[in-house]
Amino acid sequence: MEFKSLTPYGEALKLASGLSIHGRSEYIPAAESSGLYCAEDVTSPHDFPEIDRSAVDGIALRFEDSLSASRSNPVTLTVIGQVRIGDDPEFSIDRGECAVVFTGSPIPTGANAVVMMEDAFIDGKIASIYKQVKKFQNISRSGEDLRAGDIIVRSGQRIMPWHIPAFIETGVEKVHVFRSELGILSTGTELVEGVVKNSSAPMLKALASNLGLRSVFYGNVADEKGEILSKINEMKSDIIIITGGSGPSSQDLVHDIIEENGKIVFHGVRMKPGRTTGLGIINGKPIFMISGLPVAALIAFENIIEPAIRSWFGMGSKVRRTKKGFLTRSIFNNENMRMFVRVRMFEEDGKMMIDPMRTTGSGVINSVISADGYLVIEENSEGYPEGAEVEIIEIGDCL
Amino acid sequence: MEFKSLTPYGEALKLASGLSIHGRSEYIPAAESSGLYCAEDVTSPHDFPEIDRSAVDGIALRFEDSLSASRSNPVTLTVIGQVRIGDDPEFSIDRGECAVVFTGSPIPTGANAVVMMEDAFIDGKIASIYKQVKKFQNISRSGEDLRAGDIIVRSGQRIMPWHIPAFIETGVEKVHVFRSELGILSTGTELVEGVVKNSSAPMLKALASNLGLRSVFYGNVADEKGEILSKINEMKSDIIIITGGSGPSSQDLVHDIIEENGKIVFHGVRMKPGRTTGLGIINGKPIFMISGLPVAALIAFENIIEPAIRSWFGMGSKVRRTKKGFLTRSIFNNENMRMFVRVRMFEEDGKMMIDPMRTTGSGVINSVISADGYLVIEENSEGYPEGAEVEIIEIGDCL
Repeated sequence: MEFKSLTPYGEALKLASGLSIHGRSEYIPAAESSGLYCAEDVTSPHDFPEIDRSAVDGIALRFEDSLSASRSNPVTLTVIGQVRIGDDPEFSIDRGECAVVFTGSPIPTGANAVVMMEDAFIDGKIASIYKQVKKFQNISRSGEDLRAGDIIVRSGQRIMPWHIPAFIETGVEKVHVFRSELGILSTGTELVEGVVKNSSAPMLKALASNLGLRSVFYGNVADEKGEILSKINEMKSDIIIITGGSGPSSQDLVHDIIEENGKIVFHGVRMKPGRTTGLGIINGKPIFMISGLPVAALIAFENIIEPAIRSWFGMGSKVRRTKKGFLTRSIFNNENMRMFVRVRMFEEDGKMMIDPMRTTGSGVINSVISADGYLVIEENSEGYPEGAEVEIIEIGDCL
Repeated sequence: MEFKSLTPYGEALKLASGLSIHGRSEYIPAAESSGLYCAEDVTSPHDFPEIDRSAVDGIALRFEDSLSASRSNPVTLTVIGQVRIGDDPEFSIDRGECAVVFTGSPIPTGANAVVMMEDAFIDGKIASIYKQVKKFQNISRSGEDLRAGDIIVRSGQRIMPWHIPAFIETGVEKVHVFRSELGILSTGTELVEGVVKNSSAPMLKALASNLGLRSVFYGNVADEKGEILSKINEMKSDIIIITGGSGPSSQDLVHDIIEENGKIVFHGVRMKPGRTTGLGIINGKPIFMISGLPVAALIAFENIIEPAIRSWFGMGSKVRRTKKGFLTRSIFNNENMRMFVRVRMFEEDGKMMIDPMRTTGSGVINSVISADGYLVIEENSEGYPEGAEVEIIEIGDCL
């Protein structure tokens, strides 16, 4: 009733990441793409700006006319027109002439600089210029921002709110994003009977959504081989997670179902929590087996499932914030397992202290909601003595 | 055509944050609350676990019976039953007796410890115990995880995926979250005529969504006082952002509309980009004025609007990652403005170098999409020489 052998964490991750898995992707409106991950480079379709534009409200002129200008001795020019944003000016600016422009206005032919409005004074058709400007000063030159073909967002990068103006300004209407469906199936007769609540499935949906994936919960199914298999066959998902039934005992059926209908990549990992994590394949589709206990499910998602998905689709690895501090007590690893120890942090005498939390089973939710981070102790490490300086991974308001 | 005076950034932020603004909040299903911000503390309705449960698959017994147990000299006990998860066991365990339990099973009366399945062997009605256990070993004791009234998520905290199991396990069905509506109105005849694209409004919607807020785009409206005012009166939003028309010139109408129908809190801020940022109030509703240029709009949102909203609703301040490095060139602040300078970072000879980007107008989108962060130069600072060590705020895959 035990695992014959456990796969070291690093090897499990390598086996998972090394699979060649095809995800789903689609083209969606660029304006609604924030938070999703690009499935191919998004490039600027043309130079931006397409034409020279004024970067300020002011007076477009030939810079040579401004060279002697000062507040005590202004240069006066003839105002021959005004160029509003979106206009296509038909006049051109000669020496001694100028035009009123606004931020974003096209620069009329002939003009090669703009004096800011606060450095000029307009009285009817006469503009007094108080300040000299250099060639092209206050002009956003065509193509200076982006050249046609320049990359706005790379494949695998997450689209952030500030990418959206770049899409819209350069005329990118649709972007190609990963939209694989993560299907979640929960096994356990106690879930079907309602004596135990399924708290892991909605957490997994939220985790998937933070990764820009679609997710569908396919329900709770009793610990019965035929029922589980027919549910798996029903699932249209690109990636499947099965919670519960992932252990090594005869009542844990998921391993056998996968073995009989596909193949096991690994099952049982030298990690704690998350020891019963496994991965198999049926009909080319990856099926993760994880514990139904929420803490074990969370650790398995963050440390096996998410890195594997990121690797399959060429998504960048997650940026994790780390912090250093000193252990309040010794912490041992006598099990030759990779330990994910939840910790609290506090400052004492100007030192950052790291306090490993005492927990029993991996279902202990308080250890997650009140932890500030976790300390990873590698398989081959015996742990750390009290006072040792360690680096922990911060948990926080950072997705 | 210039601002009479500009409000220092710190004062503008203080004026904005100090307002007393009422937001909208609602109760939503706990399972769907990830990413939103709590409007009140969420507490555990009762002790969790409610009863003593096994933390492992194993044998429930009286720990006293295990004291002499070893693999070479096992203790044998009579198996009097099995307790499945969700069962309500009717028997009790006396000395010499035991029961099979699973992770999450209630501990039958009389038992006070659990031996893990791998440390026992069952043959029919006889269990051989190979290992001694301490009192309450492998038992999750009632209330050990959370006591009734313990806080799961504090008011103002963002709900993360791992809070959801805590809600579900303790029976929290609904949570009270902030769901204010941010209404966005874009002014500019050039937008209405379609000669300029509105790239800021969809970015603002994405930024609002990352804050857990609802957002509605109320469209583009021409630079016409009556039209803008009637749109404002139509908006059902709790917070309004008006893009464009925020400047000091006579063509910039938003300031006057607010002054005539409400009051101005501040208008014009010593910051760059974002100088035309302002805030007013009509009928108790806050109305932010910001530039329609995307970079200025972004800087105004991140540095004025978002901190103000967080302060109004008691949401924690944003966790910003910072990094230190050395400037590749000098950067001056001769305008007595708070400067937000976009920078790139790279390593050279093991040193982190910070390279300020050269930009013209605040509409320059490349400076945002390819920046790694920004350097804030305070109003009263003259800037930094080449090689100076500075701390920058990282932009990245962190919401």
